[in-house]
Amino acid sequence: MSAPDPPVAAGAVPGALDVDESLLDAVAYGPDGLVVGIVQEIGTREVLMVAYLDREALRRTLASGRTWFYSRSRQQYWCKGETSGNRQLVRRVHLDCDGDALLIEVTQEGAGACHTGAPTCFFRRIGAAAP
Amino acid sequence: MSAPDPPVAAGAVPGALDVDESLLDAVAYGPDGLVVGIVQEIGTREVLMVAYLDREALRRTLASGRTWFYSRSRQQYWCKGETSGNRQLVRRVHLDCDGDALLIEVTQEGAGACHTGAPTCFFRRIGAAAP
Repeated sequence: MSAPDPPVAAGAVPGALDVDESLLDAVAYGPDGLVVGIVQEIGTREVLMVAYLDREALRRTLASGRTWFYSRSRQQYWCKGETSGNRQLVRRVHLDCDGDALLIEVTQEGAGACHTGAPTCFFRRIGAAAP
Repeated sequence: MSAPDPPVAAGAVPGALDVDESLLDAVAYGPDGLVVGIVQEIGTREVLMVAYLDREALRRTLASGRTWFYSRSRQQYWCKGETSGNRQLVRRVHLDCDGDALLIEVTQEGAGACHTGAPTCFFRRIGAAAP
């Protein structure tokens, strides 16, 4: 990946992304129709959260410039921040080498990505290298 | 997450991480016994790759300071870089809020994380926000 784009202004209006259509067919959805999506803040480069997308969630994400996911437990689509206001403005979407993971670079709006109020969902440290 | 630790010297000898044992029980493995692991370079903060861990792969990772995963297709454990030399020195491991994803911060050794020779597996851009 190249250097991050400059942060966009808060409240920027999203829109459809420029899409490389040829890569859409390279997404390798699992038997459940889902692919894992990793959301990274484009400015701080913090990894914010992980959620799952199916073909329709990816289509909505690319068409709207907001992150859309598919909830396995609730069996429905959801747009991140739709109720909390902590929305994500999509800047870039990448596919990994074997096609079964997406990296979604966003500008995070509001307090953060986690439903607990934390900036990132990864706030619990299991281990650290000894000093 | 706090600010990244200073990069460690190339060729540093890894060892067991300091582990918060109470959090090991909070890892929510899926029906297949696996949890998704996201590997991020601690210096550049680039997201390098995604792979899966079961309880034993996490134990090996925390005990050795190298990234261990479980390959679903090959049904075996593998240590990243064991054959290529592009090993990962584990610096910190985080668990997300609902326990079903790990963020593994590493110092990447060698050419990069991807088997194609690229620094990151996420080198294909599906979409980008319009300028």
